[in-house]
Amino acid sequence: MTQREVKAAVLLIGDELLSGRTQDVNLQAIARFLAPLGVQVAEARVAPDVPEEIAAAVNALRARYDYVFTTGGIGPTHDDKTADAIAAAFGVAIGVRDDARAILEAHYKGAQHLNEARLRMARIPDTAVLIANPVSKAPGFQIGNVFVLAGVPSIVRGMLQDIAGRIEGGAVVRARTVRGRGVKEGDIAEGLARLEAEAPGVSFGSYPWFAPEGFGLHLVARSSDMAALDKARDDLRALIASCGAEPEDVEEA
Amino acid sequence: MTQREVKAAVLLIGDELLSGRTQDVNLQAIARFLAPLGVQVAEARVAPDVPEEIAAAVNALRARYDYVFTTGGIGPTHDDKTADAIAAAFGVAIGVRDDARAILEAHYKGAQHLNEARLRMARIPDTAVLIANPVSKAPGFQIGNVFVLAGVPSIVRGMLQDIAGRIEGGAVVRARTVRGRGVKEGDIAEGLARLEAEAPGVSFGSYPWFAPEGFGLHLVARSSDMAALDKARDDLRALIASCGAEPEDVEEA
Repeated sequence: MTQREVKAAVLLIGDELLSGRTQDVNLQAIARFLAPLGVQVAEARVAPDVPEEIAAAVNALRARYDYVFTTGGIGPTHDDKTADAIAAAFGVAIGVRDDARAILEAHYKGAQHLNEARLRMARIPDTAVLIANPVSKAPGFQIGNVFVLAGVPSIVRGMLQDIAGRIEGGAVVRARTVRGRGVKEGDIAEGLARLEAEAPGVSFGSYPWFAPEGFGLHLVARSSDMAALDKARDDLRALIASCGAEPEDVEEA
Repeated sequence: MTQREVKAAVLLIGDELLSGRTQDVNLQAIARFLAPLGVQVAEARVAPDVPEEIAAAVNALRARYDYVFTTGGIGPTHDDKTADAIAAAFGVAIGVRDDARAILEAHYKGAQHLNEARLRMARIPDTAVLIANPVSKAPGFQIGNVFVLAGVPSIVRGMLQDIAGRIEGGAVVRARTVRGRGVKEGDIAEGLARLEAEAPGVSFGSYPWFAPEGFGLHLVARSSDMAALDKARDDLRALIASCGAEPEDVEEA
């Protein structure tokens, strides 16, 4: 029996990602978190700190995919526009919510004041469920199939732990990677296309690398069928060996 | 006189970016290349190796922005689907083109054979203009306002050099960044919102960082008005000083 494919989209929010100021690392972290749960990231977008853009992207993506994960824009400053944009996308009200306020009150006691700005982080759209933030406490939230996470990578990783139990995955796609030093794409392209044609449940990719010490290829097979995947790895090894190179298995992250 | 804003979108193509196998670095490289030319990246997307998805994204983006830059999917292997997808998006024919073939023939002479697979890299949509690849020779191409680049970061950087002269930029947006160690967003949020409200041509952002050795904020002002930007930096310094921290200027990349 074949399990169904479960697909997700990632929406990275923030002017700093588009200006080049900040190098995103959250897409990769989310994809690697979801893969063993049986969820494949099928699309990603990067949106600026513009509420209408965020809302439009969320609505396009949540209609099309099983899950949507957003990062960024839920802090206390004026450029944090995600919560209001998500509320607008879902057509629900938003305001400071008691459960979120209680978390912040417990955290910001004593020297640090729970001021007006920090209270913005307790603004949660109606019907949303909180996501725990083990790093800096201000929560994320889930509304429908959309998970709204922070932007700081360590907080994203913490929040993902809280939602693992809320994800219903499907078939788990795994990968096998074989490296060939000194092999060029043009030498294996025909053989690789033949493998792809002959193994319907497996997808094959070719990723060249160039470095001061040399060049080569990573050939990757991906499938939810483990027997087919093991055969695919053997086939990739043989393909690289046919170019006169020593095939090297690469450990998956 | 205010120069017009010129906006671009970036479309990153490849299953490996969505699976988490590969960490993209091209978005940041393209954004940093375009900024001094007076072009702002306003949106980005990541598409899988699916021709219909690539074509739909290109058509959505090229209609909306002054320029579109794609990366990935123009190599010799079966999973390189970008060139055909772009031709489909523009409704033009595609085939091996003499100018591209000549480049490959000059490169693949002697030991390395210009085989069928490598010749795929000479498939160029009709009406497109080639983009030189100083690293591995196989060209990219420009069609209309869409620039189709390789996926390997060193090749992307090389191709960008070839197209700098084809870009008509507008107002150049510059940034000033001030760091405050030990400062929290909640302490400067109100002051930052006031700065944003009082300086119409400047946008302000707040980016917290957490590290084993401590935490803090980067406050960033962005504007095409240099006088307003210098004032904004002074204001950011004062805001950080008002929290009892020493403001530190951060060199822009």
